Amino acid sequence: MSLVIIGTVAYDAIETPFGKTDKIVGGAATFAGMAASYLYDHVKLISVIGEDFGDTNLNLLKDKGIDTEGIQIIKGGKSFFWSGKYHNDMNSRDTLATELNVLADFDPIVPEKYQDCEYLLLGNLTPQVQLTTLERLNHTPKLVVLDTMNFWMDVALDDLKAVLKKVDVLTINDEEARQLSGEYALVKAAEVILNMGPKYLIIKKGEHGALLFGENQVFYAPALPLAEVFDPTGAGDTFAGGFVGYLAKVNTVNFNNMKNAIIYGSALASFCVERFGTERLQNLTQEDISKRIQQFIALSKFEISE
Amino acid sequence: MSLVIIGTVAYDAIETPFGKTDKIVGGAATFAGMAASYLYDHVKLISVIGEDFGDTNLNLLKDKGIDTEGIQIIKGGKSFFWSGKYHNDMNSRDTLATELNVLADFDPIVPEKYQDCEYLLLGNLTPQVQLTTLERLNHTPKLVVLDTMNFWMDVALDDLKAVLKKVDVLTINDEEARQLSGEYALVKAAEVILNMGPKYLIIKKGEHGALLFGENQVFYAPALPLAEVFDPTGAGDTFAGGFVGYLAKVNTVNFNNMKNAIIYGSALASFCVERFGTERLQNLTQEDISKRIQQFIALSKFEISE
Repeated sequence: MSLVIIGTVAYDAIETPFGKTDKIVGGAATFAGMAASYLYDHVKLISVIGEDFGDTNLNLLKDKGIDTEGIQIIKGGKSFFWSGKYHNDMNSRDTLATELNVLADFDPIVPEKYQDCEYLLLGNLTPQVQLTTLERLNHTPKLVVLDTMNFWMDVALDDLKAVLKKVDVLTINDEEARQLSGEYALVKAAEVILNMGPKYLIIKKGEHGALLFGENQVFYAPALPLAEVFDPTGAGDTFAGGFVGYLAKVNTVNFNNMKNAIIYGSALASFCVERFGTERLQNLTQEDISKRIQQFIALSKFEISE
Repeated sequence: MSLVIIGTVAYDAIETPFGKTDKIVGGAATFAGMAASYLYDHVKLISVIGEDFGDTNLNLLKDKGIDTEGIQIIKGGKSFFWSGKYHNDMNSRDTLATELNVLADFDPIVPEKYQDCEYLLLGNLTPQVQLTTLERLNHTPKLVVLDTMNFWMDVALDDLKAVLKKVDVLTINDEEARQLSGEYALVKAAEVILNMGPKYLIIKKGEHGALLFGENQVFYAPALPLAEVFDPTGAGDTFAGGFVGYLAKVNTVNFNNMKNAIIYGSALASFCVERFGTERLQNLTQEDISKRIQQFIALSKFEISE
């Protein structure tokens, strides 16, 4: 059994009020894969990179025990590159550059040994590529999680709706939930979206936590109040990776385990934003994670006896 | 022992996307008193009204067992009147009219029988009047809670800072916390504000829940996701009343009880917004409240065993 993650493995250049980076390693599959690797041993990535990516960078993934056989390296190609600048409130950003490069013609390969996939994360990417990946699996995994963003709602809504029909969980943020559903109240938005295919919907609200809808239940996960968000890049991907990584570990999909999975995803995302790019995710210990989970428990636990 | 609440008892005229009211009963002390009365028996109000308020309206409070001896009725005077119109998102509003009327010269009277006050809520009002009320008590209550708003930060910051030195708990919303502290991150804002006097700070975030800071701890209370917010008027006052009402009931002030108090305050506020003005708060049953509390527990409970 394995957890397969498809998404970008890429370069980012980031500017925040706290500083600026040159090209550093980024990409949805990178963040999600690293996060998942702390919770589950058999993580396998599908992606595409150029020759410029380099062994050192690829080793950041391999060092975490992540299988990279599904990452195609295009000879003479350049890796996907994104550059952005965050505003002072860290909640909004300008995209300075998006160079698709090898991503433009990405035809995902599912290696034979990935066919043991029981948990699949379709990381933020062209819906068509997400769909192709699903089709190239020779079976239906136990759980398919889809992460996406407003950009795909703008330019590829029909494709996105086609993928939505085939997934179990969708993770998007509150504005995206409103855009996709046409409803302002998130309870109503969830109702509309759950009719589009997914059995569960996670609405990520950044510093306001996350909501899980499904099985006619709702769960409100808190976010850890942070004194400083150093760089939010990859937080959503990290969340998704931690979420599915936890579920692969416990290997039973139900509402209660999903609640815990959201807490793990949130905990890993709270580390992610403490440094630029993947820096903080590169060297976490199980003790770091365990302590952070305890903080989440302390943060939201109350006991009312009537 | 009693719980004393000072604040406005007034008329509101409200317009929302769902409808429009004539003059209906409103005011911070009205909402807070009604909320508290469901949790604690000895609620006493201090306020001022005009002759126009009428016995029927005053009976709305008396029927809930609330002591109204401290509500001065000014002969020939008119009650405070506020009128506002909510925008479609229900998160912002325009004030259409504010007529101070009898509130302009409000000199709060603390009746002798209110001197058994051990829990005091200084509801949203001129900081100077809040301060005078405190001074007219012949002892320091067990717990003093201050509710205020951005308006007083704009026009009476020095007075507000003087009151802040004398209270135990401050409740404000996130934007107000940022304004008062000059810090964007709420963790930092809390640090600054807790140095201004209060031992505890509650930051109300509306649909995003509430944060409690104090005793070097943080608690994140969820908000119940609602399909429809019919009229948000008075939700903050209701929250404050429920919060202090619960603490008066259990009569032990500590961080754990404050967490529960926030859940009760949030539960009562979630009823408040279901109808115009105080309508929904007029006829709640203990069973209604109990069920709502169970919803909050279900909403935020998770159990992680490592």
